[in-house]
Amino acid sequence: MSERILAGTIQEKDVEKVILLKGWVQKRRDLGGLIFIDLRDKSGIVQVVFNPDYEDALTIAESVRSEYVIEVKGKVVLRDESTINPHMETGTLEVIATEVSILNKSKNPPFLIQDDTDVSEDLRLKYRYMDLRRGALQETFKKRHQITQVVRNFLNDDGFLEMETPILTKSTPEGARDYLVPSRVHPGEFYALPQSPQLFKQLIMMSGFEKYYQIARCFRDEDLRADRQPEFTQIDIETSFMTSDEIMTMTEKMMQKVMKEVNQVDIPLPLPRMPYKEAMERYGSDKPDTRFGLELIHVSDLLANSSFKVFQGAIERGGKVALLNVKGEATNFSRKDIDKLTEFVNVYGAKGLAWLKVEDGELKGPIAKFISEEEKQGLLELANAEDGDLLLFVADKTSVVYDSLGALRLKLGKELGLIDESKYNFLWITDWPLLEYDEELGRYFAAHHPFTMPFEEDVEKLATDPASVRANAYDLVLNGYELGGGSIRIYKREQQNEMFKVLGFTEEEAQEQFGFLLEALEYGAPPHGGIALGLDRIVMLLTGRSNLRDTILFPKTASASDLLTEAPSEVSKAQLTELSIQLNENK
Amino acid sequence: MSERILAGTIQEKDVEKVILLKGWVQKRRDLGGLIFIDLRDKSGIVQVVFNPDYEDALTIAESVRSEYVIEVKGKVVLRDESTINPHMETGTLEVIATEVSILNKSKNPPFLIQDDTDVSEDLRLKYRYMDLRRGALQETFKKRHQITQVVRNFLNDDGFLEMETPILTKSTPEGARDYLVPSRVHPGEFYALPQSPQLFKQLIMMSGFEKYYQIARCFRDEDLRADRQPEFTQIDIETSFMTSDEIMTMTEKMMQKVMKEVNQVDIPLPLPRMPYKEAMERYGSDKPDTRFGLELIHVSDLLANSSFKVFQGAIERGGKVALLNVKGEATNFSRKDIDKLTEFVNVYGAKGLAWLKVEDGELKGPIAKFISEEEKQGLLELANAEDGDLLLFVADKTSVVYDSLGALRLKLGKELGLIDESKYNFLWITDWPLLEYDEELGRYFAAHHPFTMPFEEDVEKLATDPASVRANAYDLVLNGYELGGGSIRIYKREQQNEMFKVLGFTEEEAQEQFGFLLEALEYGAPPHGGIALGLDRIVMLLTGRSNLRDTILFPKTASASDLLTEAPSEVSKAQLTELSIQLNENK
Repeated sequence: MSERILAGTIQEKDVEKVILLKGWVQKRRDLGGLIFIDLRDKSGIVQVVFNPDYEDALTIAESVRSEYVIEVKGKVVLRDESTINPHMETGTLEVIATEVSILNKSKNPPFLIQDDTDVSEDLRLKYRYMDLRRGALQETFKKRHQITQVVRNFLNDDGFLEMETPILTKSTPEGARDYLVPSRVHPGEFYALPQSPQLFKQLIMMSGFEKYYQIARCFRDEDLRADRQPEFTQIDIETSFMTSDEIMTMTEKMMQKVMKEVNQVDIPLPLPRMPYKEAMERYGSDKPDTRFGLELIHVSDLLANSSFKVFQGAIERGGKVALLNVKGEATNFSRKDIDKLTEFVNVYGAKGLAWLKVEDGELKGPIAKFISEEEKQGLLELANAEDGDLLLFVADKTSVVYDSLGALRLKLGKELGLIDESKYNFLWITDWPLLEYDEELGRYFAAHHPFTMPFEEDVEKLATDPASVRANAYDLVLNGYELGGGSIRIYKREQQNEMFKVLGFTEEEAQEQFGFLLEALEYGAPPHGGIALGLDRIVMLLTGRSNLRDTILFPKTASASDLLTEAPSEVSKAQLTELSIQLNENK
Repeated sequence: MSERILAGTIQEKDVEKVILLKGWVQKRRDLGGLIFIDLRDKSGIVQVVFNPDYEDALTIAESVRSEYVIEVKGKVVLRDESTINPHMETGTLEVIATEVSILNKSKNPPFLIQDDTDVSEDLRLKYRYMDLRRGALQETFKKRHQITQVVRNFLNDDGFLEMETPILTKSTPEGARDYLVPSRVHPGEFYALPQSPQLFKQLIMMSGFEKYYQIARCFRDEDLRADRQPEFTQIDIETSFMTSDEIMTMTEKMMQKVMKEVNQVDIPLPLPRMPYKEAMERYGSDKPDTRFGLELIHVSDLLANSSFKVFQGAIERGGKVALLNVKGEATNFSRKDIDKLTEFVNVYGAKGLAWLKVEDGELKGPIAKFISEEEKQGLLELANAEDGDLLLFVADKTSVVYDSLGALRLKLGKELGLIDESKYNFLWITDWPLLEYDEELGRYFAAHHPFTMPFEEDVEKLATDPASVRANAYDLVLNGYELGGGSIRIYKREQQNEMFKVLGFTEEEAQEQFGFLLEALEYGAPPHGGIALGLDRIVMLLTGRSNLRDTILFPKTASASDLLTEAPSEVSKAQLTELSIQLNENK
């Protein structure tokens, strides 16, 4: 028989050729003694026609159903003008079948294999192998492949080595919750699955390799949100002797190449950079979506002595007052609409959402009476407010003001159509705080991780004013999503010791958990730093999908289950005994 | 300062250039008021000279020790004729240092960073980051990177998609022992780490992707031998609609490209193929090293009525007699030497090793008297034996004859220098048995795995004579090592059902463990098959190393420990409680 040809690749130059197709029955239609089958393979779809000239083939075609796997021999012909399908790549052609055989049958599919689907996600996950046959998901995984290869080629060309770090590693309680693996050979001991290859990639630098990368699987046993998975993949990079500036430049060139080759989009370089503090002040977010304005307007100074007690009180207690000016929307938001916005900001800890509308140069609304003439003029000026504008205020602790107005900004941006969806706004966030104070536990935590280098000029404040120390760290943001981040790492033992001390580790604790790293720092560790980018997130944004699960071949649900294979599952008592563990009675 | 240049890349064209170097102090020598430092970075080594013209630099250089990390500014010059080092890439050049700074210090290294080392492996693993600085290991991981990229490029160009399958999967007791991961969200349930992506790659075919590959991490909780690791990496490939012949052809083209691009070796195609049965008969091995002869010679027919009871009895009990003819070595093997060989074959279950030497056309040795004139003539002829040859016999069960003579053949091949180490002998082993009978458990096991397709012409024997059924499977062998193997898979539910039945599964057991696969086979599963090759093994053979641990960046010991990070380790009771497990009291 002739060599197989892919359905989606048939072109007009193939007319009159006898070809062999193998694939799935997308659809069968019977019409006037003829049978039409849309035959689908990984490349696309072509229409196959069975007619009475080839009776054996026609008879077999009659028994064929959706998702049957068939092999067809036939001749490529041009369609009649009237039957051309402009929505199909191969829509001007069809194949007249001369022979057909059924390679495998299919039961009636649990759902139709088509892009527009309202089938429940649980059903689609249980029959993932059917769901993945849909064109949109086929495309997603082709793009995922492409992104990965572009990244690899870029890094290979730049002298990086791809290297594999272990999956069975040591548990280090600092950070998220570890997945644990009981050891059979060492009863009572456990491996942990890596939350990232952080320590190993630093050890690779101490091994003298200088330029490492890995498309690395990482694991976090956290309660899952829509955009989290228990296992995820990151583009993991580490370099020796490079500055943060050089690492950012290299990374943005890599992302520029990905955008160009995968999505045919030109990204001008250098990417903008914004200090963390500015991002919080302007957007109320450390990963701002800069595709639209609606920035936070700070009015604490203006309203410090406001007769509106909510404003004045918040400022007095060390918090602040800020607002969003929702341009021209005053008449579109009823009191009820604003009540809903108030509920929305409540979730972020804001106790209320004050509002004012601008009408005929005047401020209207329940709190208008508390605003003095001078304050009014100041507000109109600071907020660049005009007739028809809606001003939405939050007065609270600084972090609450940022969180709530940052979230409200995003919500309004989407709902009011302020976002240009064709834009790809990349942005570096720099000058991060090194530490975060946990009020409940009464100690500092590393904002990134305990191996991040502080800015040299801030080091002396580590002992006196830890909260003000900035990290030599950088996050890459795209359209309001954090793609990933990195930092320059501590490479001297004394500095790492000091860092652990600031984090409240005793010497013994530091030694027990990170002794191998501390020791390695004493044997000629080079200056080093790197970055890690979330591959799943990148795929999601570049394929225009809204759900990380669509970017992972066999994803897990929000309760970390695989509905297809039914993992996790019970195991035999014998297996547990071998591992020297048992289930808790009162589980 | 000037831009950094890599030490090993400096060439004569760089003479007179002012350059910047960063790297490690390989060696420092003080000589006549000068200091010579061999500076090492990832690219190689260059000699740096400190002289009194640059006193500050000279003073700093005095404090420098081995493995310090330094930054040097200097000028490239030609060495004096008399000081040229022909063993060094940059041996005609040196760098006159004008400035130097110490980036990081190093304690006295636990061992010298040099290729010839007799340091204990445990110490090298504990200080793996020092061990990896050695040139030989740097080269190994560069080659590992290169092999991986050549494989990827080959498969990408052939239309394959690289795809990621889950690490947190379902435990399936068939096969090796699983590593288990307790689920926090589902108390009493466990994930398993995959022994291979076998089922997922089949599901990918059922998802319509047709051509999948992955450089996949796999896990087996087995007692480790020298050439096993708890986690290892395989080049994992699966295709739809391809025959075993096509898969083998594609794979050998891939390996040809790897050999050419990585080791500059031409491998002629097609690779030879040999049925399993022939490999066992000729080499006593299913992964024969065909770089040398010393094949097994079968003499059961000749000796069926031997007056030597050991021969006659073995044959009578259904076993066989075979021998190796060790050409020209009769006088080199004393009785004591042969006793040692006897001990060697004992390990493989052989009860003894009979021997004969050929002298002046006669057979000499303790059993010579049992050999009739006719048998003698027959032996000399079959074994092509001449004066000076040593004949080594094993008479036993067939499997013992093969195992022991196969192992003895390898041992003698190595010790007698029969192997041409410059050769790369690839070989396909085909026509495998589908099933193996386990006498202890009284049931058949899948020789490869339960998803392997039997040869169509053998299928009817599944019920009547399972042991004789051949699998549509193929292993790729290189120089006596199994690089990997694959098969065409069962793709119809009824056949998979039957297979599970032959393997002694009840319908419930099959359903519970593999229900998702059985169901998937009912929804248009395409004909498919694939292969998996051990990447670590390939790297080992292509870098000429003898130990898998040298091919893995952070390997584990024979007791599955990571001596560097000290994994596995104890974890807190709180961590276990969260996972609803506890340690066994009587551990």
